[in-house]
Amino acid sequence: MAERVKEGIVAPTGLIAHGRGEAFDYILGEKTTENARRAEMVAVATLLDGIRPVISVNGNTAALCAKELIELAEATKSRIEVNLFHRTEERVEKVCAFLEDAGAKEVLGRNPDALLPGVSSDRARCTKAGIYSADVVLVPLEDGDRAEALVRFGKKVIAIDLNPLSRTAKAALITIVDEVTRAVPAMTAMVPELRRNGERRLALVNSFDNLRNLEEAMGIMRANLSSLQSQGKE
Amino acid sequence: MAERVKEGIVAPTGLIAHGRGEAFDYILGEKTTENARRAEMVAVATLLDGIRPVISVNGNTAALCAKELIELAEATKSRIEVNLFHRTEERVEKVCAFLEDAGAKEVLGRNPDALLPGVSSDRARCTKAGIYSADVVLVPLEDGDRAEALVRFGKKVIAIDLNPLSRTAKAALITIVDEVTRAVPAMTAMVPELRRNGERRLALVNSFDNLRNLEEAMGIMRANLSSLQSQGKE
Repeated sequence: MAERVKEGIVAPTGLIAHGRGEAFDYILGEKTTENARRAEMVAVATLLDGIRPVISVNGNTAALCAKELIELAEATKSRIEVNLFHRTEERVEKVCAFLEDAGAKEVLGRNPDALLPGVSSDRARCTKAGIYSADVVLVPLEDGDRAEALVRFGKKVIAIDLNPLSRTAKAALITIVDEVTRAVPAMTAMVPELRRNGERRLALVNSFDNLRNLEEAMGIMRANLSSLQSQGKE
Repeated sequence: MAERVKEGIVAPTGLIAHGRGEAFDYILGEKTTENARRAEMVAVATLLDGIRPVISVNGNTAALCAKELIELAEATKSRIEVNLFHRTEERVEKVCAFLEDAGAKEVLGRNPDALLPGVSSDRARCTKAGIYSADVVLVPLEDGDRAEALVRFGKKVIAIDLNPLSRTAKAALITIVDEVTRAVPAMTAMVPELRRNGERRLALVNSFDNLRNLEEAMGIMRANLSSLQSQGKE
């Protein structure tokens, strides 16, 4: 990640955000929980049943798993749009080119022609063909303001966020409390089976309760913070 | 912090470490707990009763609270030594100069003439006049390898670490689970009263149990992870 800062893909403050994620993942146990796995299945079902699903990619996400995101986009027929928290035209171009180098056939975001209502600053900028007209938006590593604005604007928001207490985690329809490089390939692997089975997709979506999902994730974290003695034996 | 990276005080990976700290502080509630306050008092008592107390300073610590650390060093008659995880002569010079610009009269670390046993790499390098011959070492934001090596080498180690499960937190004699910019000025403020009262210092040190201290910090974190509904009301 520090290398990607030098290349201009990741903003320096992106490293701080990455560190916050690392800490939450540490408390989560650094593995995909059963709870996260269920949220991932619901997310894949929602992407597959979406009319215009879009994956929103920022610098950190591109740096961590460009190739894996492109595979997920292809498997779920989602479009990819670059949206940066610290937007500069130069960095948008770099992240777009980085994704294309990793194999993306189409990357939206270079020429935003629409604004997401309710978000100040350049982060509101998006494309009509992508995020603006999407019905389902996957936002790995999103900030709270934008996640909430996407929800208010009527999107089904799927977040990947290691902090179950974050505004993003609470605003989203589906929050995957998992590390992004574990979550994304796991989701791609779920596509073939779920694509074949519409009833299973419907059952997954209908039985999912994000509040309960987040409570379960917190319960796992609480348990991992409960025994210093056992941790000391590692 | 991102600015300090450009100046060469903080290493890029120091930003990731800073983000990890932010996440733990978030879970702690972003305030100095009663538990941390007691650990801070015990730490000040231990520094005051030390024969050769030393404060070990790295890039992150210098960037976050140079002035406050210098005040604590003066109040407790501790020496300051710069020790970097990612050591380069250039960055050692920069951090030393940064501390001197902030008012430090003496900064050790430019010319290490001793090695801390049991630590590989350049982090083992220290000064005979400082860390090597110290009896008490305050290590804000330390890594586990070096903290454990300092303990094995017979130092009374005082750590400031927001992760109560870290190897540093578990190795130290006294672990202050608090954010460094809150902890350091709070410690300086405790000096006058504790300097006057040797019996109080002794009582504090004798009644302190770091394992219980860490368990209490984890208990506070668990409680803060326990109520999504109440958090949602903020």
